[in-house]
Amino acid sequence: MQYRRLGSTGLQLSAFSLGAWVTFGRQVGRTEARELLALAYDRGINFFDNAETYNHGVAEELMGEALADLHLPRDGFCVSSKVFFGAVEQPRPTQRGLSRKHVVEACHQALRRLRVEHLDLYFCHRPDPDTPIAETVAAMDMLVRQGKVLYWGTSEWPATAIHEAHRVARDMHMAAPVAEQPQYNLLHRERVEQEYALLYDAYGMGTTVWSPLASGLLSGKYDEGIPADSRLAQPGYEWLRAQVLGEGDERLARVRRLRPIAQELGVSSAQLALAWCLTNPHVSTVLLGASRREQLEHNLGALDLLPRFDRSLKERVEQAVT
Amino acid sequence: MQYRRLGSTGLQLSAFSLGAWVTFGRQVGRTEARELLALAYDRGINFFDNAETYNHGVAEELMGEALADLHLPRDGFCVSSKVFFGAVEQPRPTQRGLSRKHVVEACHQALRRLRVEHLDLYFCHRPDPDTPIAETVAAMDMLVRQGKVLYWGTSEWPATAIHEAHRVARDMHMAAPVAEQPQYNLLHRERVEQEYALLYDAYGMGTTVWSPLASGLLSGKYDEGIPADSRLAQPGYEWLRAQVLGEGDERLARVRRLRPIAQELGVSSAQLALAWCLTNPHVSTVLLGASRREQLEHNLGALDLLPRFDRSLKERVEQAVT
Amino acid sequence: MQYRRLGSTGLQLSAFSLGAWVTFGRQVGRTEARELLALAYDRGINFFDNAETYNHGVAEELMGEALADLHLPRDGFCVSSKVFFGAVEQPRPTQRGLSRKHVVEACHQALRRLRVEHLDLYFCHRPDPDTPIAETVAAMDMLVRQGKVLYWGTSEWPATAIHEAHRVARDMHMAAPVAEQPQYNLLHRERVEQEYALLYDAYGMGTTVWSPLASGLLSGKYDEGIPADSRLAQPGYEWLRAQVLGEGDERLARVRRLRPIAQELGVSSAQLALAWCLTNPHVSTVLLGASRREQLEHNLGALDLLPRFDRSLKERVEQAVT
Amino acid sequence: MQYRRLGSTGLQLSAFSLGAWVTFGRQVGRTEARELLALAYDRGINFFDNAETYNHGVAEELMGEALADLHLPRDGFCVSSKVFFGAVEQPRPTQRGLSRKHVVEACHQALRRLRVEHLDLYFCHRPDPDTPIAETVAAMDMLVRQGKVLYWGTSEWPATAIHEAHRVARDMHMAAPVAEQPQYNLLHRERVEQEYALLYDAYGMGTTVWSPLASGLLSGKYDEGIPADSRLAQPGYEWLRAQVLGEGDERLARVRRLRPIAQELGVSSAQLALAWCLTNPHVSTVLLGASRREQLEHNLGALDLLPRFDRSLKERVEQAVT
Repeated sequence: MQYRRLGSTGLQLSAFSLGAWVTFGRQVGRTEARELLALAYDRGINFFDNAETYNHGVAEELMGEALADLHLPRDGFCVSSKVFFGAVEQPRPTQRGLSRKHVVEACHQALRRLRVEHLDLYFCHRPDPDTPIAETVAAMDMLVRQGKVLYWGTSEWPATAIHEAHRVARDMHMAAPVAEQPQYNLLHRERVEQEYALLYDAYGMGTTVWSPLASGLLSGKYDEGIPADSRLAQPGYEWLRAQVLGEGDERLARVRRLRPIAQELGVSSAQLALAWCLTNPHVSTVLLGASRREQLEHNLGALDLLPRFDRSLKERVEQAVT
Repeated sequence: MQYRRLGSTGLQLSAFSLGAWVTFGRQVGRTEARELLALAYDRGINFFDNAETYNHGVAEELMGEALADLHLPRDGFCVSSKVFFGAVEQPRPTQRGLSRKHVVEACHQALRRLRVEHLDLYFCHRPDPDTPIAETVAAMDMLVRQGKVLYWGTSEWPATAIHEAHRVARDMHMAAPVAEQPQYNLLHRERVEQEYALLYDAYGMGTTVWSPLASGLLSGKYDEGIPADSRLAQPGYEWLRAQVLGEGDERLARVRRLRPIAQELGVSSAQLALAWCLTNPHVSTVLLGASRREQLEHNLGALDLLPRFDRSLKERVEQAVT
Repeated sequence: MQYRRLGSTGLQLSAFSLGAWVTFGRQVGRTEARELLALAYDRGINFFDNAETYNHGVAEELMGEALADLHLPRDGFCVSSKVFFGAVEQPRPTQRGLSRKHVVEACHQALRRLRVEHLDLYFCHRPDPDTPIAETVAAMDMLVRQGKVLYWGTSEWPATAIHEAHRVARDMHMAAPVAEQPQYNLLHRERVEQEYALLYDAYGMGTTVWSPLASGLLSGKYDEGIPADSRLAQPGYEWLRAQVLGEGDERLARVRRLRPIAQELGVSSAQLALAWCLTNPHVSTVLLGASRREQLEHNLGALDLLPRFDRSLKERVEQAVT
Repeated sequence: MQYRRLGSTGLQLSAFSLGAWVTFGRQVGRTEARELLALAYDRGINFFDNAETYNHGVAEELMGEALADLHLPRDGFCVSSKVFFGAVEQPRPTQRGLSRKHVVEACHQALRRLRVEHLDLYFCHRPDPDTPIAETVAAMDMLVRQGKVLYWGTSEWPATAIHEAHRVARDMHMAAPVAEQPQYNLLHRERVEQEYALLYDAYGMGTTVWSPLASGLLSGKYDEGIPADSRLAQPGYEWLRAQVLGEGDERLARVRRLRPIAQELGVSSAQLALAWCLTNPHVSTVLLGASRREQLEHNLGALDLLPRFDRSLKERVEQAVT
């Protein structure tokens, strides 16, 4: 496994991480969660990403149970939670958002569900227009000083809000955010590459990117057409098809152009797309959302491709999907 | 239920809240307290207001027992306490006021009585001329950093003292007060509307207003005259009558002029007076002090009137009581 | 009982307090300690003064046991400890002084011996030339922020060291000392009246003065001569006699001149000397070190004299002992 | 025993201390550890030095067990740990270094192994080029504020990194490092005497020096030649021989010149070399790494030599090994 510092912090994360999103509590049950975590840790993955909202807290409970069962040494891995959407299905106004109240109470709940004494990373899952950034920064700072959170970050915040968080933190001598968790893949590059461009140097910001395969599209699984039993093929799901495959399947058309390159390299489209993410030096770690062990093993194969990913290959890949 | 941010904080309180003042421990016993809280929470009320001095701590004990019995999710509601008057009948000098000692010890006691690990709001119930404001701010700041208090505020403080609290907090990088709990109703408007006028923008101050019905007078219950069994009608209670109904019953005369307007709108005088409070955008929440479920339900009906409360109605109502 | 603010703090102490020095663990055993505390509290005394070094920790243990036995409400009284001399007979280098290590560890030990969760006052019993003042201030600040100490002060520090402590505290946004515990009586006035003169206004400093009767001399008990069984009369104790009674008994001679004034007022010399201490507005409380209930009751009688203590009486008293 | 302040702090350490390096868990087992600590404490040694990496945590466990068994008063001694190399044999990336994560988690582990509630000293065992110094300072500051660490320091940091740590600490109002733990002996003087020269006054830095006998070479045990059963004499260990004895045994040759001086003084070469270390006023304490009681007693004999160590003897010794 390759390890990278989370921005300018001293925290070294594995280049690929394991995310609980979507899968934990749905395709992945108690036994599978434990097996996936065991495999991931064995392969050198040291960051397990989670959020209060993933399957309404169940993803955190499953992960907490697996971590406890496996007796992994606490200092050998990192675990995160994220606050914003709430953990209950119909949150009351104080059960969501980034108020001091919810940030603090959601942290306590995540610690209980994950069965740990501190979160390594705690993300603000979205910006909250109804809470001053200074209130959220102060709440995070308090949790850091109490030792309940080691590092905090943001997820899908506009650059301007991240700037403001740093301004407040510096003014008030408070702990500043150290990482962003943005979506990033060959079809979704603007925020990470353009909008955040100044933040990496200014604040030593790291990124823990999600959806590296664009909801699976970049794995090439639709290259041969939509399977009849896929949700995307069902009547009434035209909106989802448009979202994933693009209007008139234009995203699918772009993705199909990756296959020849992958074949030439002797790798899968998924491996090609994952390795491409890691060619961006501002990417600290790429979150994988595997539901099966084979899938996780296969995706980790992208690491072998990385040394061969020179500038010319990078340009060829990027032009293919343009 | 409508929700409003507490000033510029991210804490969203229900437009109507439930206060324990006067009632809890007197008209309202163990069973009624639980039923009132259950009803209030069910109707979307998320703020339960209390104070060390309400029935000498018994109001907090009753509320704490009810909260525990009902198993309400801790992050679904807010609970407050207030410090100043002390919880014992004849407080010794260190058992009242806003010294660091009493602020800290009263907080610990309120946490025990209310059976919670943190207070959402902790108010300085009155200004304390015998304690420097800086000492009180520092004590509140410590409680906030320790996680025992999420937000703190003042109650019936003159504007100048609130300014001073903010100046100290800014100078010392300490947690500033975020809310005031003033009396506010159609007959008592000056402090909220005039004295505090500059504070709302300057500090994002919210208000949790009490006595919206002016000790019941605005509910119209004396419109038909004082019931013979009312305390106000007893010899020796002329002072109380003068206080509630005004010298020569002049306050009563003004209040009676509300009834035709209420009748025209098909609501009660109480609903009219309560809805009027909420037309002030600087009011974050209006405290209701119900002792019976029907009364609470009735008062919440004021929410339906709110959308019809345009500028012309507001002026008509205000002129009626002038 | 009269109460006074401790300097500019909001902490109101009884004009007379009970000190454990000398007596607790010697003349005063378990039962007497409990009785003295009960009487003192009953008479309105709300400050019980102690130190790690008083009878090597035994004074604190006795007081802690008495406080627990009496079930006094924790917020009804104040208790102090002092750090510097150590609690063991032959302290090792880390068991005394004002290093961060000893300040912190002595606090934890005092909390255990006194059976309380926080000290109301924690004094640096002497200046420590071998520790930077900044180190001691930072240690005290930490204990204040952790809630283990509410207020801290100094005892017998030169004014210049108190200035330095305030300078450091202001620079570092740390908790500053609020009180001094100096010796003060009719024969020992210079430090409180001259050396500290600028500190009262500059820092709102309060004082908790000790030895108001100059080791008993001002009580007039030697006015009739030294009892044959007194230590002062023994061969080999000339040094002690000189210290208490003065060279050539000159201090005794001055003290004898108080008796006629006391008799004229119908009070005892002790009461006269105690009341005199309280005429100094910079004295927050006067520590009494009684070993018997009658003695404590008698000394409290000085409060009755206080209203009659006008400027002319004060001058007459002061001239008598000059 | 002689005691010295640790730089400008108020912490007074014994001139000689006991280190667990190399020995604890190897030559020194459970029983010997307890006996050595008992003897050391009895002789006035009050600093027991340790590190997470010493025998992979076993050295700390042995020391913790011995401290508990001996019932030494917690305030009578100081115990340290050091963080950087990790406690496991093959540390994962988050199990070593000076990231906030490892600094915090290693502290918690050391507290458990040593069975204490706070470390008196916590050292950064080496500089970590992969962690910003500001992150490490903030983590140490948090541990100090939480009361888990009393003082923190560095070990074998270049002067420039120590300067940077102080700059950050001052800027952010955080706890600064107070001590360095460098190697220092007659053959290794440059860093302590030259590189750190400006730090002693600038920051009041103390030093707790290690390897005062240069891995035993200065004890004169190789003066008569390398014993046949020594590792240094084995084929394949030429590199170790070169490291300890110097290229062409040139270090050994220099050391041999000490013997006549020692004999003239009636002391051993070891005692001479140890006493020499203490002639440097910037040395706060010299770490001894004894595995046997006799060895410890013998080395402590160097204290008797100290008063005779005048400038001319010092120069003679230094010239001998040049």
